[in-house]
Amino acid sequence: MSQRPFNFSAGPATIPQEVLHMAAAEMLDWHGTGMGVMEMSHRGKAFMAIHAQAVADLRELLAIPENFRVLFMQGGGLAQNAIVPLNLSRGGTVDLVVTGAWSQKSYKEAGKYAQVNLAASAQASGFTTLPSPNTWQLSKEAAYVHVCSNETIHGVEFHELPDLQALGSTAPLVIDFSSQVTSRPVDWSRVGLAFGGAQKNIGPAGLTLVVVREDLLGHAMAVCPSAFDYTLVAEHDSMYNTPPTYGIYLAGLIFQWVKQQTETLADGTVLRGVAAMELRNKTKAELLYSYLDSSDFYSNKVAKDCRSRMNLPFFLADESRNEAFLSGAQAHGLLQLKGHKSLGGMRASLYNAMPLAGVQALVAYMQDFERSHA
Amino acid sequence: MSQRPFNFSAGPATIPQEVLHMAAAEMLDWHGTGMGVMEMSHRGKAFMAIHAQAVADLRELLAIPENFRVLFMQGGGLAQNAIVPLNLSRGGTVDLVVTGAWSQKSYKEAGKYAQVNLAASAQASGFTTLPSPNTWQLSKEAAYVHVCSNETIHGVEFHELPDLQALGSTAPLVIDFSSQVTSRPVDWSRVGLAFGGAQKNIGPAGLTLVVVREDLLGHAMAVCPSAFDYTLVAEHDSMYNTPPTYGIYLAGLIFQWVKQQTETLADGTVLRGVAAMELRNKTKAELLYSYLDSSDFYSNKVAKDCRSRMNLPFFLADESRNEAFLSGAQAHGLLQLKGHKSLGGMRASLYNAMPLAGVQALVAYMQDFERSHA
Repeated sequence: MSQRPFNFSAGPATIPQEVLHMAAAEMLDWHGTGMGVMEMSHRGKAFMAIHAQAVADLRELLAIPENFRVLFMQGGGLAQNAIVPLNLSRGGTVDLVVTGAWSQKSYKEAGKYAQVNLAASAQASGFTTLPSPNTWQLSKEAAYVHVCSNETIHGVEFHELPDLQALGSTAPLVIDFSSQVTSRPVDWSRVGLAFGGAQKNIGPAGLTLVVVREDLLGHAMAVCPSAFDYTLVAEHDSMYNTPPTYGIYLAGLIFQWVKQQTETLADGTVLRGVAAMELRNKTKAELLYSYLDSSDFYSNKVAKDCRSRMNLPFFLADESRNEAFLSGAQAHGLLQLKGHKSLGGMRASLYNAMPLAGVQALVAYMQDFERSHA
Repeated sequence: MSQRPFNFSAGPATIPQEVLHMAAAEMLDWHGTGMGVMEMSHRGKAFMAIHAQAVADLRELLAIPENFRVLFMQGGGLAQNAIVPLNLSRGGTVDLVVTGAWSQKSYKEAGKYAQVNLAASAQASGFTTLPSPNTWQLSKEAAYVHVCSNETIHGVEFHELPDLQALGSTAPLVIDFSSQVTSRPVDWSRVGLAFGGAQKNIGPAGLTLVVVREDLLGHAMAVCPSAFDYTLVAEHDSMYNTPPTYGIYLAGLIFQWVKQQTETLADGTVLRGVAAMELRNKTKAELLYSYLDSSDFYSNKVAKDCRSRMNLPFFLADESRNEAFLSGAQAHGLLQLKGHKSLGGMRASLYNAMPLAGVQALVAYMQDFERSHA
C-alpha cells in the first residue's frame, strides 16, 4: 500500500488504511450476502453477527469485566453530557471536575438535571495542569463524579484514574474517554461508567460508546428520552432504536485492526492489542514533546505530568508564521494541524491510527521550518 | 454493472449501487484531499462543502421554502418522538393521530413532556385504514398535531397531508416522514416540521433529518438536552456537536442520484428528481398490489385508498408455507422479505433505490411459487 498523507485531525480523525480498504472492498457485498452493511436490517443474522463480534472484540481489547454492559448509542459526547445525568443523577447532587473545554461543557449541561458541585477546576492555570485528586472537594452524597480523562482541546490527560474510594467517596466515577479509548488500558475497578464519541480512535462520527456497570442501570429520570435510557438500550442490546449500523461495523473493523497490532520490547516480549497501542502512543508523544521542549521556536504549555498522548497543542513563538507553517505542512502531506479555534496555534492528534512514521515526518518538517525561519 | 440481489428490507435498506460504487471509490481519498470523508474535520473546508451541497440538493429536490431550516441530527425517529415535544410542546397540549406502530410510539413518548390528546386512532381496524381528517378531535390550543405520514410496519400512507387550517386548527402539522422522504413531493404549506431517520430512502442509519419552519424555533423546554435543541442545532448549521459526517456524505450522494433520475410520460414529458421517483414508485406499488389483489394465495389487508407505496405487507393464505416462500425468495436473489415481528407474514419495501425490475422479479417469483404450491 502506498503511503497516504498523514492526517492529524482531532476528530473525525484518521482511520487505519487497511480498515478503509476492507470497507471499500465490502461496500456492495458483505461476506457473500449480496448486501452492503449499510443495507442490512439491524435485526437480521448478518448484522447481529457484526454487532456481537464488535462487542466481543472491544470487551477483549479493554478487558471489560462481566458486570459492565457495552452500549452503542448516538449523539456523541455532547449528548452524553445530558444523558449521563438523565440516567444516573436521580435529580440529586453530582460532582464535576473541570479540566478543560470538554468538562466545562459537561459541567454546564449537568446543571439542567442535577445539583452540580464543582469539585475542582484547573481554569486558573488556563487548563495547563490537572488538580490533584487529594485536593478535590467531593460531596458526601454525589450520584457520581465526572472526569474527562483526556481533554481533546487543551491536551491534558489523566495518566492514572482517581481512586475515589481512597478519597473517601462511594460515588461511581464517570469518565469521558472519547479521545482516549483503546489508546491505553482502563482500570475498571475505578470506573462506574465510561463514554466516548467514536470519531477519534474507534470509528466514524455518529457512533457513541457507553460502557456502564450494571448496578447503575434502572434509575433514569422521567424526562429521559426512551432512546437514551441506558436501561432500555441495555435490555435491547443497543437495538432499542435502529443503531448506527455502519459505524458499528467500522468500529468492529478497527477493533480487529487493534487486536492485530504488536510491539516488541527490548527483551523480546511481544505486546499485543491495547498494550501495543499504549507503548506506540507513548513513543509517538514523547518524540514530539521532546522536540517541542528542545526548541525555542515552538512550545507546549501543559505541565509535563499531565500532557496528553493523544492531542498535542503547540504554538509557534512567532504566531505571524502560522499560515506559512500550515501551508508548508499541507505541501509536505501533513494535514489538519490547525489548532482549535478557542486556543489557536497548532494541534497534532496522535491517535492509534497515526503511525510513528507520521510523527517522525512531522518533527522533520518542524525542524526544517525552524531552520529556515529562525 | 452486474445486477445485485434485490433487497426489500424496510430499513436499513437498499442503496443505489451507483452510490455505493462511488463511496467505495472515494473511501481513502475524497477529491484529491488525501483523506476519506470519515477522516475529515467537520469544521474543515472539504466537509463544509459536502454538507452545504447536501442541504442545497435536498432543498431543491423537495422544494423546501426559504423559511424552513434543514437540520441533520442523530437518534433516528425514535429519539425525535421525544425531541419534538421537548422543542415544540412548551409542556402544553399536543394532538396525536395514531395510525400504526410508529405513531403509537410517538403518542406514548410525547406523554412524558406534554398533555397528549388522542385526536384519532385507527387501532380498531387493526391499522388497515386511516381515519378521515374531518373526524379528528383536534384540541383548541394544541402546540402541534403529529401524524406519521407513512407507517413502515402497517403499510398505510397519507396520500394527501391533512389541511389543518381547513379543519379549524391553527396548530402546525408535524409529520414523521422517515419512510417517505424523497419518494414524493411534500406540500410544505401544510407542514410545520418534518422528521425522518435516513435509513429508508436517503442514507445509512444514524442520520436523522429534520426540516423545521423557523417560527417554531426558540421554545425548547429547560430539560431538552442541548445536543437536541433545534434552535442550537440550527444556529450552528448542524455543527453544534460533531454531526454524523459520513451519513451526511452518503445522503448527499443519494440526493445527487435522485436528481439524475428521469421518467418519460406518454406525451414525451420528462419528469425529473422527486417527480420521477413518485411516478416510478406508483408504478412499482401498483404492480405488486394488483397482483396481490388478483390472487387468493396472497393478500394485503390495507384499505385501497391508504395503501403505502413504500412498505407493502402481505400474507400467504397458508402461513405454514412462509419458510418455504422466504427460502425460495432468497435463492432467487430476493432478500429481506420477512415481515415485521409484530405483524408476521411478509413485507416488501419499495423505496426509491428499488428498481422496477426488482418488483417484476418479485411478482414473477410469487406467481411461480403460487403455481407450484396452489
